[in-house]
Amino acid sequence: MDSFRLHPKLEADTTMVADWALSRVLLMNDARYPWLILVPRRAGTSELHDLKHAERMVLIEEMNRAGGGLKSLTAAAKINIGALGNMVPQLHIHVVARNKSDAAWPGPVWGQGVPLAYEQGVKDMLIEKLRANL
Amino acid sequence: MDSFRLHPKLEADTTMVADWALSRVLLMNDARYPWLILVPRRAGTSELHDLKHAERMVLIEEMNRAGGGLKSLTAAAKINIGALGNMVPQLHIHVVARNKSDAAWPGPVWGQGVPLAYEQGVKDMLIEKLRANL
Repeated sequence: MDSFRLHPKLEADTTMVADWALSRVLLMNDARYPWLILVPRRAGTSELHDLKHAERMVLIEEMNRAGGGLKSLTAAAKINIGALGNMVPQLHIHVVARNKSDAAWPGPVWGQGVPLAYEQGVKDMLIEKLRANL
Repeated sequence: MDSFRLHPKLEADTTMVADWALSRVLLMNDARYPWLILVPRRAGTSELHDLKHAERMVLIEEMNRAGGGLKSLTAAAKINIGALGNMVPQLHIHVVARNKSDAAWPGPVWGQGVPLAYEQGVKDMLIEKLRANL
């Protein structure tokens, strides 16, 4: 079995937050939205049904942990969850905190506008908060 | 506890396929994409974390069943899964079969273009196939 390796596009677009039981937790490098990506650390997975039953049981709880935690932490109006993979085939789940004043509301965030870089201090502080509170 | 009632917008935009253990399974009235919507039959749920742990265990398997089944049935390139709810607060999960020749590829389907009505015979046949094969 091949070992897990993060897709280079995800590597380029995100910053490491933590490794949970199944998923690598990443922060999207886009200051427009508090935006996490969960990547199950299993090689060769593209769809939910490429995971084993027991892995899906863990994944949904990690989605829940990320979504619930991010909502509390950011006082978001709504959590958006998406698993698309039309461009990056490695299975990854977006967990995005949305607010009524954000750039894409009420539409989806994917494919809208261009990412806004975080100021380094702001990003460091956010990652610290995520590690402590999720 | 209030009893479950499908949100009027989902009622208007979809056709009933089946009731599974947890979710009502609906076909989106949009011939551009084979597009299912799963709605957990629990009143007052908007986010994943509004469900109980045991309900999430069922939901992820119903997402998997819908996605795996739809992919086989339609020979899709990729299944897209989304739980947004920025406009319709009732928790609902989109499961969409995507193809490289479809109208929005490789972008998301949400908020793109206008729905295309099914011919009635085509829709009836698709629903028949979904009921028999998912």
